[in-house]
Order: sequence, then C-alpha cells, then structure tokens
Amino acid sequence: MSDPLRLGLAGLGTVGIGTLELLETQRNLIEIRCGKFLEVTAVSARDRGKDRGFDISKLQWHDDPVALATSDKVDIVVELMGGTDGAAKTLVETALAAGKPVVTANKALMAHHGTALAHLAESSGASLHFEAAVAGGIPVIKALREGLAGNRIHSITGILNGTSNYILTTMRETGRDFGSVLADAQALGYAEADPSFDIDGVDAAHKLALLTALAFGCEVDFPGVYVEGIRNIGAEDIAFAEELGYRIKLLAIAECNNGSVFQRVHPCLVDRKAPIASVDGVFNAVVAEGDYVGTTLFEGRGAGAYPTASAVVADIIDVARGQQLPTFSLPVERLNKLSTRPMAEHVGAYYLRLACLDEAGVIADITATLRDENISVETMVQRGRSSKEGQSVPVVITTHETNEAAMLRALARIEQQKSVLEPPHLIRIEAL
Amino acid sequence: MSDPLRLGLAGLGTVGIGTLELLETQRNLIEIRCGKFLEVTAVSARDRGKDRGFDISKLQWHDDPVALATSDKVDIVVELMGGTDGAAKTLVETALAAGKPVVTANKALMAHHGTALAHLAESSGASLHFEAAVAGGIPVIKALREGLAGNRIHSITGILNGTSNYILTTMRETGRDFGSVLADAQALGYAEADPSFDIDGVDAAHKLALLTALAFGCEVDFPGVYVEGIRNIGAEDIAFAEELGYRIKLLAIAECNNGSVFQRVHPCLVDRKAPIASVDGVFNAVVAEGDYVGTTLFEGRGAGAYPTASAVVADIIDVARGQQLPTFSLPVERLNKLSTRPMAEHVGAYYLRLACLDEAGVIADITATLRDENISVETMVQRGRSSKEGQSVPVVITTHETNEAAMLRALARIEQQKSVLEPPHLIRIEAL
Repeated sequence: MSDPLRLGLAGLGTVGIGTLELLETQRNLIEIRCGKFLEVTAVSARDRGKDRGFDISKLQWHDDPVALATSDKVDIVVELMGGTDGAAKTLVETALAAGKPVVTANKALMAHHGTALAHLAESSGASLHFEAAVAGGIPVIKALREGLAGNRIHSITGILNGTSNYILTTMRETGRDFGSVLADAQALGYAEADPSFDIDGVDAAHKLALLTALAFGCEVDFPGVYVEGIRNIGAEDIAFAEELGYRIKLLAIAECNNGSVFQRVHPCLVDRKAPIASVDGVFNAVVAEGDYVGTTLFEGRGAGAYPTASAVVADIIDVARGQQLPTFSLPVERLNKLSTRPMAEHVGAYYLRLACLDEAGVIADITATLRDENISVETMVQRGRSSKEGQSVPVVITTHETNEAAMLRALARIEQQKSVLEPPHLIRIEAL
Repeated sequence: MSDPLRLGLAGLGTVGIGTLELLETQRNLIEIRCGKFLEVTAVSARDRGKDRGFDISKLQWHDDPVALATSDKVDIVVELMGGTDGAAKTLVETALAAGKPVVTANKALMAHHGTALAHLAESSGASLHFEAAVAGGIPVIKALREGLAGNRIHSITGILNGTSNYILTTMRETGRDFGSVLADAQALGYAEADPSFDIDGVDAAHKLALLTALAFGCEVDFPGVYVEGIRNIGAEDIAFAEELGYRIKLLAIAECNNGSVFQRVHPCLVDRKAPIASVDGVFNAVVAEGDYVGTTLFEGRGAGAYPTASAVVADIIDVARGQQLPTFSLPVERLNKLSTRPMAEHVGAYYLRLACLDEAGVIADITATLRDENISVETMVQRGRSSKEGQSVPVVITTHETNEAAMLRALARIEQQKSVLEPPHLIRIEAL
C-alpha cells in the first residue's frame, strides 16, 4: 500500500469541520477509491480552544496557517479560511511556490487573484483545485473542464447563491416582503449577520467569474461582472411575475460572442416552465450551453458544510489519484483576454413597475416615452384604484426586446413625470 | 508540441460521423485544451462506399475493425459499432490486450461484459472509457467516478431512455395512445424500426447496470436488473395520473442497502412537482443521492449524434491529458459482488387501473381483497357509467405503501373476479 497522503487544513469553520468529519467517516471508502489513505496531519484556525464538536487534539496545531505550506508533514494544503487577501492568499501562494497542491473553497480569493495563482501553480508544477468554490456539491467545475471539453461553450446561466434563492423562494411561497424574510433567514443561519455579499450579488459574481474563465478559456475577470442584487425586489414584484407566468431568480449569466464576454448577475424574470425556474430554496443550478452537447443542467445544494466538504474531498481525491490539470483547464499563456461588454449593450425584454397617480393621461405619457425610444410594450397591468387622492397605484409593464441604453433613457424621462411617484423598478426578463 | 494522438474509429453511423465532425470542427480548440492534436488516422465500418455526408477518403480504411486494434497507426481505439458480442467485443478485447486505451459508446457490450473488460484493461494497463454509453452528453460517469467520489451513494434514479421519454411526453401532451405516438416517433427517427430495446426498458437497464457498478463500487450485474417497459401504458393512465397530481416516467432506479442492491427499470408515477417529472421529450436526467452531497441532478440530451459525440470526445481528451482511472473507479478485485434483491421485496405505493362491470358489489369485492392483503387504499376514482350492459368502466385505485408480493397476490385474486373484465394495469408510484 502506498503512503498516506497528508493534508494540512486551514480554517475550521463549518466547512472545515464538515471536511474533517467526511474524511473520518469515509476513511476506508476513500482508500478504496484512491488507493491510499488521506490523513489530516495538521490544522490551523483562529482560536485553538473553541469547541467545534470535533476532536482536533491529535492533530498538529499551527497558530500561523502559512506554516502548513512549509511543514514537512503536509503534502496537500486545504484552504478553507476564506477572505480575498491576507492569510488565505499568503497560505495559497506559499504552498504553490513550495510545489504543494492546494485545494480551496475560496471564491473571493480565486475571483480576485485566480489568474495570478494559476500562473504561480504552473510555474512550480503544483496544482490548484477549487471545485468547492462554486455551487457547493455540484461538480460543475469538473463538468466544464473535462466532461464538456469537446464543446465550445456559448453560455453559462446559474443560480449560484443559495441565500438569495432561499429568500426569493420564501417570498414567493409566503407573500412576505424582503426584509422580513431576510431577518428569518438570518435567524435560521441561511444568511450571514452582514448579508451583503449574498443579497447584493457579489458572491454569485465571484463564482460566475470562475465559471466564465473555465467555460470560455479566458483570464478571470471579476471586475468585468455587472452586479445587481435582490434588495429592491418587492413582494408585489413576485406576485406580478407569477401573474404574468414568470418567476424571479437571481441569475448569474456569462455569454461569449465573437471574442467578447458578457458577465452579469442580476434578478431576472424567467418563464415559470423553464427548468431553472423550479430550482428553489438553497439549491443551486448551472445550465451550460455547448455547441455539440446542447443544453445541460446541473443541480444540487449550493452551500452548507457537507455539500461543500463533498467538493473539497473530490478535489483531494483527484490529487491523490494523480488527476492534475491546469487551474482553468488551459495553460495560463493560452487563456484569452476577452473584452468585456458593458451592460448598456444588453438586449432583452424588461419588466417595469411604476407607482403612478391614478389620473387621466398618466399611461399615455409613459407609453409615449417608451415609443419615443422605440420600446414596444408587450403587456400592461394596472390594478385597482387609489383609495384617496394623491395615492399611487401600481402599473406594471413588460416590453419586447430592446436595448438597455434605450430603456435607461426612457426610465430617466419617466421618473421625471410628476404623476410617477417613485423611481421605477426595473427587472430584466431572461428568455431561457 | 507533442505528437498528435492517433485515433482509430470503428463504426460510422450517426454517432461515428458526429464524432468525426466534432473532431474536425474543434480541432484547434481541442489542441489548446489537451496540448496535442487528435487525428483520426483509420476507420472501419460495414460499407465503405456509402455516402455519409463526410469525406472519409483520406482516412485509412479497414474492412475488419479488429485491424484498428493492432494497427501501428492507431494509439486509441474508438468503438462506435454497437452490439453485445461479435466484432465490437473482439475489437475492444484486442485493443485492451494490446495495451491501447479504448473509448466506447456501447452500453450493451459494457452491461454484459463490463467487469471482464475492466479486468482485461487492468491486466494490460490500458484504460477503458464509456461516458458516451450512458445519458449521452451528460457527464454523469465522470460525476459519479470523480465529482462525487467523497460520498457513499445511496441511490441513483434516472430517465435514461430518450425514446421512451419522448413517447410518454407526447402521449401526455396530445392525449394520443401509445401505438400512434410510437409510429410517429419511428417516422421522425426518434424510435428504431424495431423499438423493443427502447420501449421495453432494456436500453435503460443496460445503462442502469453501469451506473450501479460505478455508484456502489460493485461488479456490473445486468441480469440482476428488473425490467419492465412502457408498452402497456394507456392514454387513460396518463390522464388519470395527471388528475391525481402525477406524471408517468420510465425510471431506472438503483438503491444500495446493507450490501444488497435493488436495480429496477419500470414505468412510475412521480409527483408532478418532483424535478425529474419535468424532464421531458428526448432529455435524460440522473439524480444521485449521496450521504454528504445530498441530492444532485444532472440533465441533458440523452442521445443523438452530437451529444453522444461530445461524450466520446470528452473521454478521448481524458486519455490525451493522461487522466486514466480504473474502468469502474476501483480496481476490479475491490469491486463488491452485491446480492440482488428480487422485485417481490419491493415496498412502495401502487396505482391500479381496472376495467370493471358497472354493477353492485364490484368495488366491495376489490377492496375486500386488498384489505385481506393489508393493502390500504389512498384514493379511488370511478368515472362515468357504462352506456350499455356488459360494458366496463375504469376504476383507478392508488394505495399506500405495501409489499410487491402482497400486491401481486391481491391482483391475482382480483383478476379472477368475474366483474373484472381485463387483467389489472399496475404502475408503481415512486416517492421522489
């Protein structure tokens, strides 16, 4: 039997502990699958004394995570600390520079520094694995890098943030508003105390930037992602969407056309019958469109200790089995620098919700403004009458395909009409 | 640059030609992805002169496919001929014995001889790849063997035959009966002239046997699969299922409990809201349940020249990149021989459709028989009245969970009641 593969694990939060548990429970199963035992020999975390419900007393402890990278008792470094810079970055850099394979779940680190880290890995001959950074337990990194490797991928569409999807699903199921559902999600542990990375789309954008690089063979371009979150989605938007045959999802979309890439994260109305519309709660899904394979969909739990641990361990098993590929599938010098298209060039249909005074001529003014920008209305719903003078009624309009720049010009003019009482709510309609 | 990898391709049907097309179209893309060109150097098929819409005149032709295995111009053998035995088997055996990697799309061959071929591959150090044999373009073999390798898989549930799924979907959408939809599917090329492998569940059973071996780490046991097709599904069953909140799908299910495996392919009523219920038309899907990852779903086109070519080429790229693993993920001597449980031990809920005389006491007799076997009725629907004496009316019953053996005993007695005019139709209800 070969020598065990020795793991140094940095970060003992829920994913770190989930990974330790998985490695212990499946110890023999994993040995059968990769021909050697995986042994955690050293760990590092912020607080040694904290009760984590898992006995770490027999593992070598390092106060400084970077020590794992240079320890002669560690063959692979597993980075589960998180954070864009600081210790996580130093640890990964040091390990790669020392020629040690690294497995990480850190999407922020990879989104910001992925290309540089891939370069470092390549220079030293170490490998860098990040299945756990995107869509939890769903092996989508492997699918794009290997399973669909015979395809030119045209687009990736994903539900990549479980917290946002849980909030939108619960809003739909209960009719409650965003703030109250968020508060519950925080109480249940589905949302962080500071939920902004999740609900403002940043987390989904980190993950999208990684999928984009893999799918299109280009450098990671996180700053090129247009990002808009779900804070402004109202209970009334969810209800109107249902009525019109749609559901609202926070989608992460990357498209590649003629050497330019469009990366965007924003709420979308999607046809209620589209497969991705039924991906609810904390589940994630990724739809990849390839020229030969057609449409494929991968769905599963997007977060949580165990699904994420499943992905971390799959990467470790790849290393143990000698399955090592370039970080983003291609050698770094062959990754393209694709130009990013600005959101103003987006073409699509739109949903608008306006709060208007219930008086003659309001609709005529709005529709005239849309017409002036060549925007064609598909449906218009005006519901109820205001109960007292000066109170607004909601007007919902969906449009045919138009250009985002035209839509924004029209909205700027509509917002100035004095019978329009609030800034218009705009949600893009995505044909899937 | 490294030397090109030279492919010998046997079988120039739609998948063979699709593979040649893909390799030509993506020639440069693939070189970027695996660091070398893939060159088809030799081919073999039944009829050299046939017009295939693809110029094969520059490729070395072999009348005998087995010559590809021994040709010194061929590094990898790609077997796309089909067939359980005969030339396909000899070709694969000869290539493996010669130490050449083999990529095959042949589920029948792998289902019948998978373990022996895996053994042969292991002995000679060659690798045997079969992503294209299951679920077309969906990279589910890779997902089970690598992406979910940290999990103990509890169950696999799949829609693995596109022809059957297309027929059931069209029956639901049009209300037409099985025979007429099948005839149309044949005219459209979605079903073969002899459709029995597809509609009788054999094709799905071949694929399930392969997924079972991979998921549970056991030898391939195709004879252990219980198989029942969709020939007896009537338009009225589809309609009653809809009314009761279900859809009818031909499912392939493998479960592993305490060292025994249950493999079965049969039509099922599934909750209309279950994700797999919306997998329609020629699409395939596989749901895997793992102890850490939870539920994952993979969906995509299950057949067709291009999706299957996508899987064939992914396997070839794996070989080119040096990604070689044991055929069924584990060394052959570590594959378990799991005992197969007989269908009589199945426990589940059932749907029954009976053709009964419309007269007093009929329902009382039927329900008494069920009661005698401790089978508890969940719903009963009796629709309409017979228009003339001696004509039957349909009675549909769904039951709570019971044992298959008890259900079959009850049905044998019900069938003998003289007011029951046809053999009862039984469809299992699957909780997903």
